[in-house]
Amino acid sequence: MTYCLGIVLPAGLVLASDSRSNAGVDQVTHVCKQSLIAEPGRKAIAILSAGNLATTQAVVTELRQAAGSGREGKDLFAAATFFEVAQTVGAMLREVMERDAKHVEPYGDATASFIVGGQLAGEAPRLFQIYSAGNFVEADERSFFLQIGETKYGKPILDRALTPRCSLDEAAKLAMLSFDATLRSNLSVGPPIDLLRYRPDSFAFDDRIVYGDDHPYWTELKRQYGEGLTALIARLPAPGPGG
Amino acid sequence: MTYCLGIVLPAGLVLASDSRSNAGVDQVTHVCKQSLIAEPGRKAIAILSAGNLATTQAVVTELRQAAGSGREGKDLFAAATFFEVAQTVGAMLREVMERDAKHVEPYGDATASFIVGGQLAGEAPRLFQIYSAGNFVEADERSFFLQIGETKYGKPILDRALTPRCSLDEAAKLAMLSFDATLRSNLSVGPPIDLLRYRPDSFAFDDRIVYGDDHPYWTELKRQYGEGLTALIARLPAPGPGG
Repeated sequence: MTYCLGIVLPAGLVLASDSRSNAGVDQVTHVCKQSLIAEPGRKAIAILSAGNLATTQAVVTELRQAAGSGREGKDLFAAATFFEVAQTVGAMLREVMERDAKHVEPYGDATASFIVGGQLAGEAPRLFQIYSAGNFVEADERSFFLQIGETKYGKPILDRALTPRCSLDEAAKLAMLSFDATLRSNLSVGPPIDLLRYRPDSFAFDDRIVYGDDHPYWTELKRQYGEGLTALIARLPAPGPGG
Repeated sequence: MTYCLGIVLPAGLVLASDSRSNAGVDQVTHVCKQSLIAEPGRKAIAILSAGNLATTQAVVTELRQAAGSGREGKDLFAAATFFEVAQTVGAMLREVMERDAKHVEPYGDATASFIVGGQLAGEAPRLFQIYSAGNFVEADERSFFLQIGETKYGKPILDRALTPRCSLDEAAKLAMLSFDATLRSNLSVGPPIDLLRYRPDSFAFDDRIVYGDDHPYWTELKRQYGEGLTALIARLPAPGPGG
């Protein structure tokens, strides 16, 4: 399983992903589920992947190879808008599935999904979710975060505390708490966590951190949050007696 | 959808359930998903239901009608242990499914599952989860809470804060916070919440509260928790800059 999260705010984008990949209990490996494709000063495209690893790697590798090639409908750098970026990713997913799915299905699930975020010159930063069918939706000011994979454990903290007025650092902190809730409750999502912050008009992915289990910040965040939550819950009133 | 939660601790049992029942968007109704069957001083059996409402009502109604009848394998009051109580519920579920499922399946999902908790004289309080297949598992000191229905949103707060040393009131408070997280993140789970506390050797269900949206305790719990969590998150350090 996987957990990937994308947040789009006036302050910019936060993109985070776990690293667990498994095909059965004794084939657990670590992979980076973030692919960053940039043309300095003009284009910054981040692709977060969930689902069958062979499918997601095929999609991302073929997109990388086609970037700048001018191949019709496959060249991310030829996209004039981020909507066209999402279309290109969806089309590549459909092409890979058309070729591979019938061979994979006797052995397991070939499907994949993606979160694609970033910015093209002339637009604000945008965020899309590409479904397994290759169609997609865009985040907006009312639903400004998108999740793929094991999404439920990490949703309550975002529903409660994330607002469009959050700073990029506040959103990054909430993203880490969302991953912490997911990792605690589900063994199939695992560290390290890749955390990417993107500031509008930077057109560069220069603010990325890899948080392993023993990273001092993550350790400290978990300690302070755990202790603070325990103290908070202790202060709350208990239900009165019923009848 | 539904969310039901059972907790078994040395201090006793906490059993909680939501009230939303829906079969399509315009048929939303409220139902109580807790059925309490007791023989004062000797038996206390609570059944929490999730799944197809016709199936769960048929199972519970037929179990009520058979209680004390002496009918082989169907009489909850004839059970010598709580393991036999779980077997009886599972067997009744299989009987109802055998009779009804083939008629229901063209229209939708006929399956159901249950949490069954309580106490028989001579045993400590016990807690079981009955799967749709009619088989079941029992909670123990390492997995001392069981959930059915929409379980994921409300699990992180329990994983983090619920311990076997909790008092019954602390466990009840955490159960309410678990339901609050679920209700915030999922429209298909809805109030009122039925909260039942059972003290060992009481053999009575005399501590039950129905929490509607506007119940003063629940309103106050949500306010204090929301404000406390916002303040806690504001105090936490933000991730440092990456590279």
